[in-house]
Amino acid sequence: MLERNYIHKGKFNLEAGGVLEDINIRYHTSFERPEGRKVIWICHALTANSDPSEWWDTLVGPGLLFDTEKYFIVCANILGSCYGTTGPSNYAKAPMRQFPLVTIRDLVAAHELLRKHLGIEKIDFLVGGSNGGFQSIEWAVSNPDLIENLCLLATSALVSPWCTATLEAQRMAILADPTFDEQKDLHGGAAGLAAARSMALTTYRNYDGYTRTQFEQDPDFLLAHRAVTYQQYQGQKLVNRFDAYSYYSLTLGVDTHNVGRGRGGIEAALKRVTAKTLCIGIDSDILFPVKESRLLAEGVQDGRLEIISSDFGHDGFLLEYQQIGEAIKKHYELFK
Amino acid sequence: MLERNYIHKGKFNLEAGGVLEDINIRYHTSFERPEGRKVIWICHALTANSDPSEWWDTLVGPGLLFDTEKYFIVCANILGSCYGTTGPSNYAKAPMRQFPLVTIRDLVAAHELLRKHLGIEKIDFLVGGSNGGFQSIEWAVSNPDLIENLCLLATSALVSPWCTATLEAQRMAILADPTFDEQKDLHGGAAGLAAARSMALTTYRNYDGYTRTQFEQDPDFLLAHRAVTYQQYQGQKLVNRFDAYSYYSLTLGVDTHNVGRGRGGIEAALKRVTAKTLCIGIDSDILFPVKESRLLAEGVQDGRLEIISSDFGHDGFLLEYQQIGEAIKKHYELFK
Repeated sequence: MLERNYIHKGKFNLEAGGVLEDINIRYHTSFERPEGRKVIWICHALTANSDPSEWWDTLVGPGLLFDTEKYFIVCANILGSCYGTTGPSNYAKAPMRQFPLVTIRDLVAAHELLRKHLGIEKIDFLVGGSNGGFQSIEWAVSNPDLIENLCLLATSALVSPWCTATLEAQRMAILADPTFDEQKDLHGGAAGLAAARSMALTTYRNYDGYTRTQFEQDPDFLLAHRAVTYQQYQGQKLVNRFDAYSYYSLTLGVDTHNVGRGRGGIEAALKRVTAKTLCIGIDSDILFPVKESRLLAEGVQDGRLEIISSDFGHDGFLLEYQQIGEAIKKHYELFK
Repeated sequence: MLERNYIHKGKFNLEAGGVLEDINIRYHTSFERPEGRKVIWICHALTANSDPSEWWDTLVGPGLLFDTEKYFIVCANILGSCYGTTGPSNYAKAPMRQFPLVTIRDLVAAHELLRKHLGIEKIDFLVGGSNGGFQSIEWAVSNPDLIENLCLLATSALVSPWCTATLEAQRMAILADPTFDEQKDLHGGAAGLAAARSMALTTYRNYDGYTRTQFEQDPDFLLAHRAVTYQQYQGQKLVNRFDAYSYYSLTLGVDTHNVGRGRGGIEAALKRVTAKTLCIGIDSDILFPVKESRLLAEGVQDGRLEIISSDFGHDGFLLEYQQIGEAIKKHYELFK
């Protein structure tokens, strides 16, 4: 896919009151221009980037379900991230730690700027998992006529208290690392970020998933170490590719997810959505239990629910590509 | 209950190779001596103390199920804790951070010393939840003739990979706080400990429990804050009553729980247990799923399983006293 940048000159007013100037939006597309092709817009999750052919390489590519040789596929890096779009680490106007609060609606507002810049008037298929699902449902609520078909994976209409609690624990770990506030460079808060990611992973998977992959192999073990080294490895892996400032900022963004805000509540908001909507829940997901997908499917005007089975909990939205592909093909003519 | 101390003079050899000297065991009893009374031994969980009439005040007290006016009730603070028994913060021989590894078997070895000191030759009823259950099953495996009746609450025969993963994330948070290593005083690692506790809570409860108690009350909320303040409050609450050194040490102890070690595996170890055993699992417990209680109940010679229903996940072992009391009364003549 092609990596490009769109600089939106001027002020970008944030929902919570802050202002960003001259934001850059880093994005990937499968072609230069839509030129009559069906438009598939992919919203990425918390720590991903704008190249879905990288993190969703089982679904996005030549000849795959989201065929990069057939459709005009777009994915934009979200505001506050560290993968090219304006975020704490590349925005000179504020110290990294004080980057203003960016809500899910702000992420969508940035997507709208890019959409207009690209001359897209209709999105044939909008898809997102987890935080990408937050953006997708928010977009469909705020601009229902724009979206023809909508696929929401392992996501919800508003952030749950348990989700917020796990994120707050992660932010507390980042703040326990004083190098975060010293912010001498992008590595500030690295140890805190590693701990936060380690914590997050336990919510992305679950008891059974860990039992399957991290079970101690020596029945006489004195001190469990397999899950320990896995946690440390995964924590460090995120530190190597992300920064604590973006992570902190994006998790606060999650805590703003509430499609009902100022719209008479969740029910009224979801009723606005006219797109043909498929909600996919994962049976073992402890972070976004199936009931959240059901609420979405029952709330929109034209919704349906598919529940897929996985040992990998919430991470199933990245891993269970076959079941996801089958569910999408089953419900949408577009992919038949 | 009476608070007392027992100093065991001489060396205490630890399973992992370390040695402690002249350990103190802080304990509570309902009477000075057993004097023919039935003996109920209560093993406390990770951050509790030796006074169950404080943290289990619904079950332990005059006229309650564990009647302090009728039975000789004993509870000992565990090695490595900060509630009176020898632990990192009151042991002069090692820097707090380097307190040697204390295994679950070491906790039981200390209980054995106290038992002999008290002249107890038979425990009529041994009960423990969570880490207290680790001690209880380990004790019953290592000294089966000692224990007449055994009650294991929300616990397991060996630590699970998911449990270890959540604890490692917590230890990473503590280590991300450099004041832990500076260890100028007992407050070292306080911010890390608060983050760790905040993480732990999300595993002690679950999605539904948080939804029930921490749901945002304003449907138009911009930034979720109820669960946020709850997490911060609970983190600080543990900091006020515990220290990071004991917490770190005790979580490592959890990761040593494996009744099968050196005994030909879990199955062979559990088969040694002759006590009439009741295992109580909690349907919503994500940290110790019911399957772990079932494995215990099916593994011991004379086991049975009761599953109780709770919105409070693992914390149900502290909160669901009515269901726990009923299950115990149902299965044991002792309490009829």
